[in-house]
Amino acid sequence: MDKKVTVIGGGNVGATAAQRLCEKELADVVLIDIMEGMPQGKALDLTEAAPIEKHDASVTGANSYEMSADSDVVIITAGIPRKPGMSRDDLLSTNMGIMRQVTEQVAKYSPNAKIIVVSNPLDAMCHVAYEASGFPKERVMGMAGVLDSARFRAFIAMELNVSVENTHAFVLGGHGDTMVPLPRYSTVAGIPITELMPQDRIEALCKRTATGGAEIVSLLKTGSAYYAPASAAVEMAEAILKDKKKILPCAAMLSGQYGINDLFIGVPVKLGAAGIEEIVEIKLTEDEDKALKHSAAAVQELVDTMKKL
Amino acid sequence: MDKKVTVIGGGNVGATAAQRLCEKELADVVLIDIMEGMPQGKALDLTEAAPIEKHDASVTGANSYEMSADSDVVIITAGIPRKPGMSRDDLLSTNMGIMRQVTEQVAKYSPNAKIIVVSNPLDAMCHVAYEASGFPKERVMGMAGVLDSARFRAFIAMELNVSVENTHAFVLGGHGDTMVPLPRYSTVAGIPITELMPQDRIEALCKRTATGGAEIVSLLKTGSAYYAPASAAVEMAEAILKDKKKILPCAAMLSGQYGINDLFIGVPVKLGAAGIEEIVEIKLTEDEDKALKHSAAAVQELVDTMKKL
Amino acid sequence: MDKKVTVIGGGNVGATAAQRLCEKELADVVLIDIMEGMPQGKALDLTEAAPIEKHDASVTGANSYEMSADSDVVIITAGIPRKPGMSRDDLLSTNMGIMRQVTEQVAKYSPNAKIIVVSNPLDAMCHVAYEASGFPKERVMGMAGVLDSARFRAFIAMELNVSVENTHAFVLGGHGDTMVPLPRYSTVAGIPITELMPQDRIEALCKRTATGGAEIVSLLKTGSAYYAPASAAVEMAEAILKDKKKILPCAAMLSGQYGINDLFIGVPVKLGAAGIEEIVEIKLTEDEDKALKHSAAAVQELVDTMKKL
Amino acid sequence: MDKKVTVIGGGNVGATAAQRLCEKELADVVLIDIMEGMPQGKALDLTEAAPIEKHDASVTGANSYEMSADSDVVIITAGIPRKPGMSRDDLLSTNMGIMRQVTEQVAKYSPNAKIIVVSNPLDAMCHVAYEASGFPKERVMGMAGVLDSARFRAFIAMELNVSVENTHAFVLGGHGDTMVPLPRYSTVAGIPITELMPQDRIEALCKRTATGGAEIVSLLKTGSAYYAPASAAVEMAEAILKDKKKILPCAAMLSGQYGINDLFIGVPVKLGAAGIEEIVEIKLTEDEDKALKHSAAAVQELVDTMKKL
Repeated sequence: MDKKVTVIGGGNVGATAAQRLCEKELADVVLIDIMEGMPQGKALDLTEAAPIEKHDASVTGANSYEMSADSDVVIITAGIPRKPGMSRDDLLSTNMGIMRQVTEQVAKYSPNAKIIVVSNPLDAMCHVAYEASGFPKERVMGMAGVLDSARFRAFIAMELNVSVENTHAFVLGGHGDTMVPLPRYSTVAGIPITELMPQDRIEALCKRTATGGAEIVSLLKTGSAYYAPASAAVEMAEAILKDKKKILPCAAMLSGQYGINDLFIGVPVKLGAAGIEEIVEIKLTEDEDKALKHSAAAVQELVDTMKKL
Repeated sequence: MDKKVTVIGGGNVGATAAQRLCEKELADVVLIDIMEGMPQGKALDLTEAAPIEKHDASVTGANSYEMSADSDVVIITAGIPRKPGMSRDDLLSTNMGIMRQVTEQVAKYSPNAKIIVVSNPLDAMCHVAYEASGFPKERVMGMAGVLDSARFRAFIAMELNVSVENTHAFVLGGHGDTMVPLPRYSTVAGIPITELMPQDRIEALCKRTATGGAEIVSLLKTGSAYYAPASAAVEMAEAILKDKKKILPCAAMLSGQYGINDLFIGVPVKLGAAGIEEIVEIKLTEDEDKALKHSAAAVQELVDTMKKL
Repeated sequence: MDKKVTVIGGGNVGATAAQRLCEKELADVVLIDIMEGMPQGKALDLTEAAPIEKHDASVTGANSYEMSADSDVVIITAGIPRKPGMSRDDLLSTNMGIMRQVTEQVAKYSPNAKIIVVSNPLDAMCHVAYEASGFPKERVMGMAGVLDSARFRAFIAMELNVSVENTHAFVLGGHGDTMVPLPRYSTVAGIPITELMPQDRIEALCKRTATGGAEIVSLLKTGSAYYAPASAAVEMAEAILKDKKKILPCAAMLSGQYGINDLFIGVPVKLGAAGIEEIVEIKLTEDEDKALKHSAAAVQELVDTMKKL
Repeated sequence: MDKKVTVIGGGNVGATAAQRLCEKELADVVLIDIMEGMPQGKALDLTEAAPIEKHDASVTGANSYEMSADSDVVIITAGIPRKPGMSRDDLLSTNMGIMRQVTEQVAKYSPNAKIIVVSNPLDAMCHVAYEASGFPKERVMGMAGVLDSARFRAFIAMELNVSVENTHAFVLGGHGDTMVPLPRYSTVAGIPITELMPQDRIEALCKRTATGGAEIVSLLKTGSAYYAPASAAVEMAEAILKDKKKILPCAAMLSGQYGINDLFIGVPVKLGAAGIEEIVEIKLTEDEDKALKHSAAAVQELVDTMKKL
């Protein structure tokens, strides 16, 4: 392949992202983790699946960054996972240190990469990656809205017994309890769900979406979601690698859009070869705008906390 | 979907098999495990990935067998996994009990299913599933040769720097140290590898194949291979579900073929809607025949051991 | 495969539909045409492509209907094609006779099939197929809205330089000059295009959509569109074969919905294993309702004309 | 997309190649033909199918070469088609002129492209393209063996009722009556077909393969094969675009291999990013070598004829 993607963190999210990237023949993949042997073992396992899955993308495991050189996209999943009962914010200080260290290596070896941050707390980690990389804001983004939207879409499809391909959902704001689902822009076959479901069901689905990560954690008990998060990160990478000009809700550094400045927060962006090629501004109602500002305030608080650490 | 596959065992092999089955839209999937919440959590995570992966197969997690009723294919991955240093045979007694219990439930709820055994020690577990199900021998088979062949193919592709799609490999016999790779029938673009590699390299690749599972275990340290095993099981399921008439090396109950009787051992079989539709007999050299008999003896020994337990 | 689809008419639309059906491994395919040798030749060509495209669906060409027996879905593309300068309505009388004859054979050999009509004039031909088959209205439908919507989506994607995957479009009414595009329900990433484009551009795209078939005819000079029409018919077939519960705009026999009775016209329907499982009623504005009624009147006129022939 | 493929000739082979290239998202596609409107019409039709087929590759039709600039791969299908009763050689003089003119334009606008020749008579046209382009021999190749092998594989699969995925076939030599099928290297699940079929059936399938193009022509009456030829050309393009290192039988300029010099003839080559990265030499029996030399002599004769024209 002539494209290369590095995935940092060989846990379930990272390894599943590596799997999807190679099996869709999107790029050669380098999987990096500090655990000795582990990324090499998963990469070898994926390599041994290749003859059956019929792809020729290479998958390489590594414990250091040399192999990642000149990656087109780097997906960062590093960080300790959220445990049952743990809030996203508890992860802050530990993951901040990990993220900084990782990003410095990424920027050193792949100075032209686009960085997709998956680590939590998401919006805060985007800030760390942005600063540590020194990359322009077009090339640093966070995966949250695609996952939240996918969950919302799955719930809508189940509720109405329709194909997931019919569903579209829109979730703005920070990743976490303050996310802002937009039912008006969430549709089934183009029809806003506000015409298809009673208000109380919409609210129930929104709430389930906002706590979607926790729902999986409480079921798995010893781990967190990885299939849908990996799909979401790979959809973003694919849009960049194939220059699809695809509008997806991602955490992006705003510079005045939506009245927000110098903050990463989930908004619709157009992804293409250059990374974030456009931040799409949609009209919000007063309530939606208030909710987005509320969400932004929560992210700002984290950013302020990090500055003090 | 109008096809249904149940996967027993929600560990990495089972969950990855479930993922591949639904994301290829081969069937609706039921994932069963005794761990409360775990199969439900993984099924929900897969369901939430569906909108991004664009498929409408349903995935359901369960702790009992009602949901599995009337499955077309059942993949059994249940059993305790092989740990570092543990031989396949150490697993025998524990997994025998698990396999018997699982198979009885499978046979009760899906009397017309085809059973694909993945649990280790593979050939022995096939015997247990065969007896506990009471199914005709066409509908019980073991996954080993497809995995072993895939590993051999991956190693050949790496050695010669060719596409995995060019490679074909053939591995007979029991799954384990006594497997019988057939270099004569292993080809690159139709050319036997005996014309493409020196004998010592072929032997090195054969040896690496025979210990392929252990190699992954020693790298991962806390787990065993799952990507390639899941791919292998799903390739078998796909051949059955789509009635592909695909010849694959599988553990099958022999009735005189290759001079072997009443024993499950890896041979080429044709998989189609009826399960094993044909056992393909190929001419073996004296050495190959001897190696196959040796492998059969090792399986027979396990079967005899089980009878005494 | 355990599914079977028959395509009637071996011209470009029919052959391309056959190609997509087999290469997506949706079903075994029978391609029927009255031209001796032609469907057999195209089927053989497709069969010879199968090893490269890696599918095991069978494709069979035939000049009579025996081979089509027990099809799950039948796609009817038979009829003479629209030539440059010819209106859809000119085709009426010739194609009415062809359609009646074809449908009687289809119903005889595949009494449980779902029929997808592609022949023009579309809505009128649906009436003929409905009457000649004697099938319940759930199992006879016309392909028009999916094609019209796809064209509208392609134009939207080009206009805004976004991924086609971001676009959704909604077109109701008859297939032809009276089709009713609904910009309100046509979205990019969930955002109604009315928020993204000036009114005059929307009108230009709507107009281009309504004359989309003629645009291709005028370019090709000696033929009409086939790639997009075949994709549209196969998307409908896939929704049925995989029981996707997918809402698509199709010509369906109405019984009071939208205030229309006993008429085939393009409306959103949910397609699943049973065929049309639901007719989705969306709220129309006064203008939209008027346009739909206008379109229905045009279809009614054709139906009345046919009665007199 | 960041890859670009130009297809010269908008007939059925060229258009179908364009379809497969864009729908597999291998590259943006430019379709060129001298017929005004026709390539534009087919490109627009393919563009309108994109929303349903869910790809974002662009497809552009053109009557001149500007749009093709900087293509990675150029597939040349230009030339008048073989009509019923017409031998491949009858096409020689007309197509020679077309090929020279086309190649000069290709070389001018895409000086770094890899050229895949599909026009007939194949081996002779490769010589014309090679000379007219002035490209190194690694970047000019002909599509014949992949198609002939695919036909042979399809016939083997039908004969033995096995999956096409199990089959591998090997055809050397010129494209036409003198092609050299190698049953020894043609396998089903790695087993040479010489062990699976009686000699007379092998001979029958070989003969059917050698006349495979004519069989389709005689069925279609007014056209020749296009589905399998397009698949074959696209498989070659994919191997180059994805740097797959895939060994495929292609017409390549030999420089001493197989004892042949300065002649294009079908041999196994390894295709990767650089084009033909290796010519694979396999051991031939005396009979096979004789047949290859015979085939080479037939190609040489055409080349000599062309020199005199």
